[in-house]
Amino acid sequence: MKVDVLTLFPEMFEGVFGTSILGKAREKGIVALQAVNFRNYAGNKHGQVDDTPYGGGGGMVLKPDPIFAAVEDLLENDTAVRPRVILMCPQGETFTQKKAEELSREEHLIFICGHYEGYDERIRQHLVTDELSIGDYVLTGGELPAMVAIDSVVRLLPGVLGNETSAVTDSFSTGLLEYPHYTRPADFRGHQVPDVLLSGHHSNIEAWRRQESLRRTFERRPDLLKHADLTVKERQWLKSLEEQSAQRVTD
Amino acid sequence: MKVDVLTLFPEMFEGVFGTSILGKAREKGIVALQAVNFRNYAGNKHGQVDDTPYGGGGGMVLKPDPIFAAVEDLLENDTAVRPRVILMCPQGETFTQKKAEELSREEHLIFICGHYEGYDERIRQHLVTDELSIGDYVLTGGELPAMVAIDSVVRLLPGVLGNETSAVTDSFSTGLLEYPHYTRPADFRGHQVPDVLLSGHHSNIEAWRRQESLRRTFERRPDLLKHADLTVKERQWLKSLEEQSAQRVTD
Repeated sequence: MKVDVLTLFPEMFEGVFGTSILGKAREKGIVALQAVNFRNYAGNKHGQVDDTPYGGGGGMVLKPDPIFAAVEDLLENDTAVRPRVILMCPQGETFTQKKAEELSREEHLIFICGHYEGYDERIRQHLVTDELSIGDYVLTGGELPAMVAIDSVVRLLPGVLGNETSAVTDSFSTGLLEYPHYTRPADFRGHQVPDVLLSGHHSNIEAWRRQESLRRTFERRPDLLKHADLTVKERQWLKSLEEQSAQRVTD
Repeated sequence: MKVDVLTLFPEMFEGVFGTSILGKAREKGIVALQAVNFRNYAGNKHGQVDDTPYGGGGGMVLKPDPIFAAVEDLLENDTAVRPRVILMCPQGETFTQKKAEELSREEHLIFICGHYEGYDERIRQHLVTDELSIGDYVLTGGELPAMVAIDSVVRLLPGVLGNETSAVTDSFSTGLLEYPHYTRPADFRGHQVPDVLLSGHHSNIEAWRRQESLRRTFERRPDLLKHADLTVKERQWLKSLEEQSAQRVTD
């Protein structure tokens, strides 16, 4: 996979692209990551990439020309595939694991990161294929959102992940939050590991983990339970938890 | 404000902490940012910070001792304030702008970033004050989520933002998505700027922007409209949009 990022702050990506999973995926040749400064495509000697908005008002707007020119330059040697051109912005579709899976099947992704400013609307209308937002909070630019999207996509590429990540991946595939984990010491400052985990009784351990996973999802993210794959007995148990918590409120 | 990040990959933070808003806030002395490797607190000569889970299964679990020791060391010279100790994890509360505002009123934030592994449950129970998730997607570690949270919090601190950011900030304060922006050239490859923006007629421009902001929110994030501050006339106009789009579906 090829991933290009258009940004005014390519130096923000150095530490992240070189480390951990992204660094390893790069070394193995699974992904080619590149941060490109679109100021190089300004087409004027002052390197001006933004301008005041038509119709007045505060703030600056990123001009269409430099970003179109940068994307077109990236596509010059890339006639075979139609890349996804992704704008990171608060107005975008909310990024999810499903979207990460979809993007992981592409050959070439181009991320456009604005910073402070708005984008000229013609960039949205005539250049990008996707607009993505990573969540409902205000950030300074699209750089961190692009890193987030790239990390979640690249780790899905075949050959990137080793066994060290199995726990995290498994937990999400059930559609529930993870059960509690414990490791040595068994007694940490008087706080004990639950007996069942020390029992060596595998089916009891499995049952405890499943139940704690359900309980945590019920307490923290009940919205996830709607789409989770549960048995009739589990649905009943959740129902009893619900009744208990309703009772506690009215007591 | 003091912000400390506990991580096994402090080098990931260099580019981000030194650039743009975070870099400037640091230079101005508004925030002290530090990434600390908690492997330094392993307390054993191999620097071991994780171990296999009690009860068996794949993956590794971060041990409680190094993380407790690292947090306690950070608190040693900090008896006056009670810091927020924030665990970045998929099981956490979903991070929002409201949470960013809440955290921006604190004096000291400590972020704990896991990587690959789970956390020993006693870290959650007896050390952290908040568990946060930035969205429903799987990432390799808590580092990128911590950067996201830090960026959104620090930009709210008094004195950090200049006027260059007004557009983005304003748009969110209305509870609606931003209206389309346009800048020079007025004709870009045959794609024109809407006439109204070139008219110089301020009240028409205001009305057009408000309407496009409503339309975009209706099309992309209708969930935001529930809490938006709208006039009766605006509610009626949205109703007519709804009827039009329903008709289009049945046609």
